Amino acid sequence: MIPFDRIVKIDKDLNIPVYRQIAVAIINAIRNSVLKAGTHLPGSRELAKILGVHRKTVIAAYEELNAQDWIVIVPRKQVSVAEHIPVLKPQDWSQSQLKKSYKNEFSLPFRTVEKSGLSVGITSVFDIIIDDGHPDVGLSPIDDLLKTYRTLASRKHSVKDAHIGTEQGTLKLRKELVSYLSETRGLNITAENILITHGAQMSIYLSSQLLLNNSTKIIIGKPNYLIANNAFKETGTNIIEVDVDNDGIDVYAIEELCKKIKIDAVYVIPHHHYPTTVMLSVERRMKLLELSNEFLFTIIEDDYDYDYHYSSSPYLPLASADHNGNVIYIGSFSKMLDPAIRIGFMVAPQNFVTQCTALRNAIDVGGDGYMQNALAMMIKDGELKRHIKKAKKIYHSRRDHLDTLLREKLGEYITYWLPTGGMAIWIKLLPQYPIGHLEVMNGLKIKRISIAQNAFRFGFASMDEKELENAVDLLVLQFQKFKAKEK
Amino acid sequence: MIPFDRIVKIDKDLNIPVYRQIAVAIINAIRNSVLKAGTHLPGSRELAKILGVHRKTVIAAYEELNAQDWIVIVPRKQVSVAEHIPVLKPQDWSQSQLKKSYKNEFSLPFRTVEKSGLSVGITSVFDIIIDDGHPDVGLSPIDDLLKTYRTLASRKHSVKDAHIGTEQGTLKLRKELVSYLSETRGLNITAENILITHGAQMSIYLSSQLLLNNSTKIIIGKPNYLIANNAFKETGTNIIEVDVDNDGIDVYAIEELCKKIKIDAVYVIPHHHYPTTVMLSVERRMKLLELSNEFLFTIIEDDYDYDYHYSSSPYLPLASADHNGNVIYIGSFSKMLDPAIRIGFMVAPQNFVTQCTALRNAIDVGGDGYMQNALAMMIKDGELKRHIKKAKKIYHSRRDHLDTLLREKLGEYITYWLPTGGMAIWIKLLPQYPIGHLEVMNGLKIKRISIAQNAFRFGFASMDEKELENAVDLLVLQFQKFKAKEK
Repeated sequence: MIPFDRIVKIDKDLNIPVYRQIAVAIINAIRNSVLKAGTHLPGSRELAKILGVHRKTVIAAYEELNAQDWIVIVPRKQVSVAEHIPVLKPQDWSQSQLKKSYKNEFSLPFRTVEKSGLSVGITSVFDIIIDDGHPDVGLSPIDDLLKTYRTLASRKHSVKDAHIGTEQGTLKLRKELVSYLSETRGLNITAENILITHGAQMSIYLSSQLLLNNSTKIIIGKPNYLIANNAFKETGTNIIEVDVDNDGIDVYAIEELCKKIKIDAVYVIPHHHYPTTVMLSVERRMKLLELSNEFLFTIIEDDYDYDYHYSSSPYLPLASADHNGNVIYIGSFSKMLDPAIRIGFMVAPQNFVTQCTALRNAIDVGGDGYMQNALAMMIKDGELKRHIKKAKKIYHSRRDHLDTLLREKLGEYITYWLPTGGMAIWIKLLPQYPIGHLEVMNGLKIKRISIAQNAFRFGFASMDEKELENAVDLLVLQFQKFKAKEK
Repeated sequence: MIPFDRIVKIDKDLNIPVYRQIAVAIINAIRNSVLKAGTHLPGSRELAKILGVHRKTVIAAYEELNAQDWIVIVPRKQVSVAEHIPVLKPQDWSQSQLKKSYKNEFSLPFRTVEKSGLSVGITSVFDIIIDDGHPDVGLSPIDDLLKTYRTLASRKHSVKDAHIGTEQGTLKLRKELVSYLSETRGLNITAENILITHGAQMSIYLSSQLLLNNSTKIIIGKPNYLIANNAFKETGTNIIEVDVDNDGIDVYAIEELCKKIKIDAVYVIPHHHYPTTVMLSVERRMKLLELSNEFLFTIIEDDYDYDYHYSSSPYLPLASADHNGNVIYIGSFSKMLDPAIRIGFMVAPQNFVTQCTALRNAIDVGGDGYMQNALAMMIKDGELKRHIKKAKKIYHSRRDHLDTLLREKLGEYITYWLPTGGMAIWIKLLPQYPIGHLEVMNGLKIKRISIAQNAFRFGFASMDEKELENAVDLLVLQFQKFKAKEK
């Protein structure tokens, strides 16, 4: 006697119709060979009695099973498990009910991936998170962006526009960027030179995948943006580190390297180098362009932090200079608006953009066309510029406020250079205070700590004056605790 | 005499302050060596006269240039180009003004990428696009989703939630999916088994990158979803095609292959195979799981089209059966809501998900956390289910309507099987009507045509009855024209 009352467990609190619960239970019993091919099942009246449900419910379940080919129904005669179900090894049914379909680890060979820079361990339970340079989302015109988004998603014509060609980015946004990038960055391009991505990182990944492999060499700054490094490592390329000083990456060291070995690409973050926040000087910018011409390497210019400068306008990008075409320019709107708004861009010669678009299509068929077009409208009507202007003023005063706090309260523990722009200060601890003791703190979490540099990034843009004060006070406490312990 | 009136061209209609236009023009002149290091510049009064602007404007420009280290100002004495600017080869300044920064092609070596399946040539100028199976965006509860999105983006706590851990997907959405996937698909998993991606394609790309390389072999259906093939090709793996008949991929042919060679992975689209729309039969599903156990290959189960079934409920996924852990289950919300909403998911053992998350972070640091959490809320309050129920009813009637139209109006030109679910019908042209003549039509564009199969996909879900009729009428016209020409 097959124990149907134990095979089929009905849970009336579940959000699944009872007939479907019965059907699923029977399918699982067939799969686990509790019910074998050809086994007769009770008539609907009988099973209804066993399970304490209405007969119509069982009929619905059987119809479902029949439609899915699990059982064969001969009307008014019998119901049986289909003959074509292969017989598997029998299992104890009471155990099999408990099994998780993903109880097993994946056991076949697969490769592992570099993980540095993953935001492991950061959860929303911390009262204060010192990020590595996020915008203040409260200032962001995201609500206006979303209003436009809603309008675009509700009108037939704009829906079409948002669905077409999003692997390269909507034409509307690319066209808007042509004039925006010309006005703000002196880039002289067409819509064909632009690829819209999910952010700066995707542009880095795509261009690395096309340019690099295990027989190439790329130069990066030391220290560098770790997540970019992960993208380079994915290609198997050889990574060569060159020191970054107060004028940015050492281009003269790059020149020496180029004289000795073939260099294929140089990755630079001209404003402001991550994590140290220095700006690449004008002199070095020109030198780097010269070297690219002479030694024929690609410049990957990651200019994620272009928009916020406090003492002067930003330097124009390398990409805006007269160059040989081998400069890939990368930017993002996530730093202007909100890290959740996944829109970035890459500017490159058209033949390169075409290949990147094809690769992007293989990774991810497209982007959020509504969001792209809503952003396009925000750029067109000048709202983005107004936002940046407003945010710049506020970030400027936050930078200065943090500067004051650091000098007054943490002066005996740290050193730093005040960056001319950006959203973070790179803070070095004096050697007698190892950064390790800042890794675990009550109510405060620092996102980007460098053990090697005994330093961390203090993102000031996302915090108001009070929050900056609270964060600094918590740091002071931590330093004092450490000092007391050392004595 | 340096011709400053020609070096500096001021355009008062431009949205750039005049002082900044002057500064940019001088920077470009320095870069192009029209102005060499050490060159004396006119005093502010003199330059203001030459350019016909206010003296204060020139002073602002000079201050800008000074702040950026391009020039050196000795107050009341002189202004000159900084000495540290390297001297480049002189160029004719009148030409250099015209040069585009991206006039050059990218000229260094880079690899090319497979491009099949790119939506090249589709623009919004077509009156009617026959897509390959898109949802009807007009039915989608996207407006409610966006309302929730706006709320989430405006509250401090929900902003935090939307920013944390988005490389794996917000915890809120992953938790909601645990019960949703259990209820709808019988998957028995935890939040650690889930990775949120930008859509099904990204899950395919990530898992291929981890599993495949040039010494592995993957089996795919013939014909297959071309964009998935692009992801496989990116890994350098060996692709083996196995025929797809009316019961789905031929698992017995897979068995024969496994006996001869080592197979590492099998890619299946159980409902409904793309492009042919067939369902993988129950028998073959069980057989495939058995083979995976015996020959130790990974099953990549792309179940993008699970939600719309008209004659019965969908078959439960392979991933819901008792398996060895080597089944990767892939799904997407883009097909339920809107192709612009880029949210998909992958279900796999935790050790595999961890590596995929690391790779995803190297490609694209995260997703749109607001959208993910808004979707989570839509799932929680049952709205997604209600939407699917409503849409299913409408798509069902559209499928039947298209069926009638095809039989009545195109019967003499085509053959097809009516699919039991999904959003498209796979239509084969009779051999005397080569598909080529449908590639270019007035006012109508078909997104997915297969020359090899002499067939195309007719996505019916996104069109109302009138639109279906219009599209079929245009097709009839085209067939008649072709027939008349052939005579």
